[in-house]
Amino acid sequence: MRTRFHQGLDDLKQKLLAMGGMAEQAVERAVQAFQTRDVSVCEIVLRDESKINAAERDVDEMSIDLLAMQQPMAVDLRFIVSCIKINADLERVGDQAVNIAERVMDLATHPDPGLNIDIPRMAQLSISMVRDALNAFLSADVDLAQSVLERDDLVDNMNREIFEAVNVAMRNTVGTHRNLLDILVVARNLERVADHATNIAEDVIFWVRGADVRHHAQR
Amino acid sequence: MRTRFHQGLDDLKQKLLAMGGMAEQAVERAVQAFQTRDVSVCEIVLRDESKINAAERDVDEMSIDLLAMQQPMAVDLRFIVSCIKINADLERVGDQAVNIAERVMDLATHPDPGLNIDIPRMAQLSISMVRDALNAFLSADVDLAQSVLERDDLVDNMNREIFEAVNVAMRNTVGTHRNLLDILVVARNLERVADHATNIAEDVIFWVRGADVRHHAQR
Repeated sequence: MRTRFHQGLDDLKQKLLAMGGMAEQAVERAVQAFQTRDVSVCEIVLRDESKINAAERDVDEMSIDLLAMQQPMAVDLRFIVSCIKINADLERVGDQAVNIAERVMDLATHPDPGLNIDIPRMAQLSISMVRDALNAFLSADVDLAQSVLERDDLVDNMNREIFEAVNVAMRNTVGTHRNLLDILVVARNLERVADHATNIAEDVIFWVRGADVRHHAQR
Repeated sequence: MRTRFHQGLDDLKQKLLAMGGMAEQAVERAVQAFQTRDVSVCEIVLRDESKINAAERDVDEMSIDLLAMQQPMAVDLRFIVSCIKINADLERVGDQAVNIAERVMDLATHPDPGLNIDIPRMAQLSISMVRDALNAFLSADVDLAQSVLERDDLVDNMNREIFEAVNVAMRNTVGTHRNLLDILVVARNLERVADHATNIAEDVIFWVRGADVRHHAQR
């Protein structure tokens, strides 16, 4: 019985990791579409959203089944509750990918404003934060979680820089500002991806502090 | 023992309701500050963020204690898990209030663009969605939760209208567009409040469908 429970915990970890991979891939694809203005890639992101939503429900159900299976020890209880919270953040990372893809579909119909801002770098940083936050959780690594929190300031700064760059570009632009506004929204969507990574990292710290994690790691 | 558990569930409901009240009040204050450009109200919103964060941790701890206290029945298990998920959304509603307040502090230093857009109405709608989603949860009312989901489209439409209005205003504006960009960001923050309400409503439907809620209501 105890073994079945631990097998269930391992399955839950794997499922959450797969969920994270899907969410990361969605953002990567959306940003790839941003760079190439490739609407067909946007359509893939939109199509795959339902898979991420289904995976979210699976993780929730697995978590609830584990909670119901037996009286979990405190350390396992906190682990499962953290899975539920992190799962919700990963699903919303996927939502941001959809938001970006929709914006790219709008951008593809307007001239490129030729703005000198580095959306791919902001995306890379945000995606790496999600990946590291999830790895920090699965290896109970508080230092890695802490590094994610610190990187959030970098993303916020990049977002502010883009806000200022768009503001300046608008002043010098005649005609539509729609493409500039779209780029601003994409930057904010990436900032939200980083926010979700930050939320996950905070959950990791909460979980590690609130539970005897060494015990968990040694089991 | 069973009675202590039920007392705990009631306490958890009350605490979550109080958490919801704090988050709603924060958004109300931020929008009030937006209308009056009153920086002192913004400072109250920033100051009170730590109270909302502390309340979030309390709800999580209460939930974990209840899960640990005894083997909860399936219906109670799902209720507690939903509390944990809804709690996270309410905390992020509070984050949006902080984002709006920061934006208002920036707006207060720039001339009013005199744009004909109805931020207060968008705010009212978003806040009512949060309130109704929380009430739907506490009374296990799927119809009310469904009505929250439907209202999300209204907020999305308002957000799109504001996007277009700002775009047009930018075309007709010489000099800084910063105040217009700030207003756009405030609108998006309110859209996120509505998104959180939508997430809560989805959790309510998930919870009610996944559990014998009539049993819960009759207890």
